[in-house]
Amino acid sequence: MNASEFRRRGKEMVDYVANYMEGIEGRQVYPDVEPGYLRPLIPAAAPQEPDTFEDIINDVEKIIMPGAASPACTELETVMMDWLGKMLELPKAFLNEKAGEGGGVIQGSASEATLVALLAARTKVIHRLQAASPELTQAAIMEKLVAYSSDQTAPCTGTVPALEVCGEPWSLSSWHGSWWGRQMVATLGTTTCCSFDNLLEVGPICNKEDIWLHVDAAYAGSAFICPEFRHLLNGVEFADSFNFNPHKWLLVNFDCSAMWVKKRTDLTGAFRLDPTYLKHSHQDSGLITDYRHWQIPLGRRFRSLKMWFVFRMYGVKGLQAYIRKHVQLSHEFESLVRQDPRFEICVEVILGLVCFRLKGSNKVNEALLQRINSAKKIHLVPCHLRDKFVLRFAICSRTVESAHVQRAWEHIKELAADVLRAERE
Amino acid sequence: MNASEFRRRGKEMVDYVANYMEGIEGRQVYPDVEPGYLRPLIPAAAPQEPDTFEDIINDVEKIIMPGAASPACTELETVMMDWLGKMLELPKAFLNEKAGEGGGVIQGSASEATLVALLAARTKVIHRLQAASPELTQAAIMEKLVAYSSDQTAPCTGTVPALEVCGEPWSLSSWHGSWWGRQMVATLGTTTCCSFDNLLEVGPICNKEDIWLHVDAAYAGSAFICPEFRHLLNGVEFADSFNFNPHKWLLVNFDCSAMWVKKRTDLTGAFRLDPTYLKHSHQDSGLITDYRHWQIPLGRRFRSLKMWFVFRMYGVKGLQAYIRKHVQLSHEFESLVRQDPRFEICVEVILGLVCFRLKGSNKVNEALLQRINSAKKIHLVPCHLRDKFVLRFAICSRTVESAHVQRAWEHIKELAADVLRAERE
Repeated sequence: MNASEFRRRGKEMVDYVANYMEGIEGRQVYPDVEPGYLRPLIPAAAPQEPDTFEDIINDVEKIIMPGAASPACTELETVMMDWLGKMLELPKAFLNEKAGEGGGVIQGSASEATLVALLAARTKVIHRLQAASPELTQAAIMEKLVAYSSDQTAPCTGTVPALEVCGEPWSLSSWHGSWWGRQMVATLGTTTCCSFDNLLEVGPICNKEDIWLHVDAAYAGSAFICPEFRHLLNGVEFADSFNFNPHKWLLVNFDCSAMWVKKRTDLTGAFRLDPTYLKHSHQDSGLITDYRHWQIPLGRRFRSLKMWFVFRMYGVKGLQAYIRKHVQLSHEFESLVRQDPRFEICVEVILGLVCFRLKGSNKVNEALLQRINSAKKIHLVPCHLRDKFVLRFAICSRTVESAHVQRAWEHIKELAADVLRAERE
Repeated sequence: MNASEFRRRGKEMVDYVANYMEGIEGRQVYPDVEPGYLRPLIPAAAPQEPDTFEDIINDVEKIIMPGAASPACTELETVMMDWLGKMLELPKAFLNEKAGEGGGVIQGSASEATLVALLAARTKVIHRLQAASPELTQAAIMEKLVAYSSDQTAPCTGTVPALEVCGEPWSLSSWHGSWWGRQMVATLGTTTCCSFDNLLEVGPICNKEDIWLHVDAAYAGSAFICPEFRHLLNGVEFADSFNFNPHKWLLVNFDCSAMWVKKRTDLTGAFRLDPTYLKHSHQDSGLITDYRHWQIPLGRRFRSLKMWFVFRMYGVKGLQAYIRKHVQLSHEFESLVRQDPRFEICVEVILGLVCFRLKGSNKVNEALLQRINSAKKIHLVPCHLRDKFVLRFAICSRTVESAHVQRAWEHIKELAADVLRAERE
C-alpha cells in the first residue's frame, strides 16, 4: 500500500471505528455464534493472488464482527496459523485444522516462544522421570535436567533469556550444552551471521534419545514460503516445536511470533489454569482452543487480524516476491563487495544478510563502522565471528530498491578509502 | 474523546503517518540527540488539567521525532513511569528520575511482571546463599527456595503462571506457601472479589526476614491516584517490586503493565545479555537504561506513547474523576442490591466490583447467571467465595453512566423473579 492508498484506507478505518463506537449500545454484549463457526467461512489456505481491500473489510463485517472479540480472536488465530503453516509446508502434525494433536499460536516474541517450549519440555520430562522412578526427589530430578544449544544459537532470538528463566542462573557462564531439560534448541538463521543448524543431523538423534527439539527460525522462517528456500527447513518433521517471527520479514507489524507444537497437550499440561471466573461452557467440549493455556500472559491481543490483512493484501505470490527481492538485493550487495579486492565476504550469503569486512585488522573495521554510523546515512550493526570484527549489511526495509543498495555501497567505499588513508598516515 | 472528535483526530494521524512515510528518505537513519535529551524537555509530573490535542501532537514532532525510536522510546518510558509513580505517591526509591537505584518499566502483562520479579528474587537469593555457604550444591539451594501467596492471590493476575514457570511444577497442587524463592507475592484487589492484602502487616516481616516482597495491584492500582484510595497502597514502602495494569482501569489501551523495582540491578542481574550486535557506545555510561535487561523479550513496542497521550488528554484530575465515577456507580448498584431483600452483598464494595447473590442455594444463583448471560444484554462473570457461587457486577466501560446501571439492575431483577418463580414451581 503506497502513501496515498494508505491515506484513503486509513481514514475509512477511522470512520469504521467511530461508527462502531457510536452504535455500540445497539450491539449484543455476547455473540450468537457457536464454537467453530469461523473456519467454514474462510478459505483453507492463503490466496495466491492479492485480494482487494474492499473484500477484506467486507469480510471483517461479515465474519469477524458477529464473533466479536471472542471467539473470533481465537478462531481466526487457529486458521491464520494453519494458513502460515501451509505456506511453509510444515508437516500436518503441526496444524490445528484436523482437530488433531498439534497446533499453532501467536506469541509476543521469540523469547516467549522458546521459553514456553522449554517449560513444556521440562514438565514433560519431569512427569516421565517421576513415573519411571517414583523414588526420585525433586532435587534429584532437577539435577538431571540438561538443555543444549550451539554457541551461535544461544545469544540470538531469545534462547538465552528463556534459558536464564528456566535454568540454574549460576551456570550461565558455560554456554555450550549442559543446562537443563532434555531439550535441544536449534536455530535456522542466527542473528550474528544467518547460519543454519542441520535439522536432518540433529533431529533423528533427538527423537531417538527422547530429547525435546525446539527449532527457532525467528528471522529466516519467513523465507521458507519460497520453494527454493524451503530445504533449509528440512528436518522440522523431527521437531516438537518451531517458531519464527512474521514481524521480522513477512510484513506483519511488530509484535507477532508464530509458534507451532506437535502436541498441544504438552503446552497445556505446563500452563493449565482454571479458576471459576475463567471457566466457560465450552471448555471441555473439545471444540475450542483456550490459548491462555499456551502462553505466559492471561490476556491476548487480536494479532491474527494483522496476519489476515497482510496475507490477503499481498497473496502468497506477493509475499514470495517480497522475500526474493530482498535476497536478490543482498546478492547484489555481495557481488559489489566481491568486486572490490580491499573487502572480503565472511559467510556464505543465503538470505538478506551480508557479513563483510575490510581485509585487515579488527581495528580498521571498527574504525570503518564508526565512520559509517557517525555519518548517519546508513546504519550497520556489527558482530564478532571467531574473534573477527565483522560488518553486517541487512536488507530489511519494505521499500528498499537497488538504488539504495548502490548508494550505500558507494558511501561505504568512500568512507573505507578515508579509513585506509588515515591508517597509512 | 467522543466519536466526532475521534474522526477528526484519527484522520489527522493517518495523514501524519502518510506524510512521514512519503518523506522518510529525507530523514537521518540515526538521531542526533544525546542520551538523557528527553527528560529536560517535558514536565517532571503529569498535568493536573487536560492538555489540548494540538499541544500533544506538536510535542510529538518537537520532542519524540528528533529522538526517533531510540532513545525516545526508552526515555519517554522512564519519564512516564515517573509521572505515574508520582500520581500513585510511590516512595521515591521506585522512581527513575534521581538516577538512583530504582526505576519503572512497562511489561506486557501482570504475569510477565510477576515472573520477572520472581526471577530477580531467585537470582538474588541464590547469590546470597552461594556467598554464605559455598559448599552448597545447586540442588541443595533449589530445595531451600520458597514462595508464599494467599489462596485468593494466587490464581489471579498472573501469579500462578509465573510460579509455574519458576517453581517445581509437580508441587502445584498445594497452593499455600512452600514453593520456591524467598519471595512473597501480595495482592491489592484480587480478581475474584477485589480483596486486599495488608502490606503494613506483611511488609515488615518480609523486610526483617530478607524475603522479596512483590505487590501485584493489577486492577486496583489505578484507583491509588485518588487520595481517598491511596491508603490501600500503604506499606508499599516495604516492597521490592510493585506492578499494576493501566490497561485495566486507567484508559490506556491493552497492553500496558506498569512495574517498578527498588533496585534495578536486581533485574538486570537476572537478565543481562550483551552480544556484540547489541552493544552500543553508551551502555557503560550510566546515562541510559537498557530495558532489554528488565524483561523476557528482546524487542519492545513504544507503549509509553499511549500513556503520554492519555495522561495529558485527561490530566490527573480527569483520570481521578473517571475512577471516582466508576466507584460511585458500583456503590449505586450496591445500594440497589441492598434495597432488595432477596439479594445479599457478599464482600465490602471498595472499588468498581460488586459481589452479590440471591440469598439461597448455589443452584439458584447458577440459574440466574445462566439466564443473565443467555439474554446477552449484560454479561457477568461469576466466582466462588468460600464455596458460595457469587455473581460479579463490574463497572469497567469508558462510557458507562448511571442509566446503564439502573437498566442492568431492572434486567437482573426481572430474571431473578423468573428464576425464583421457576424454583417454586
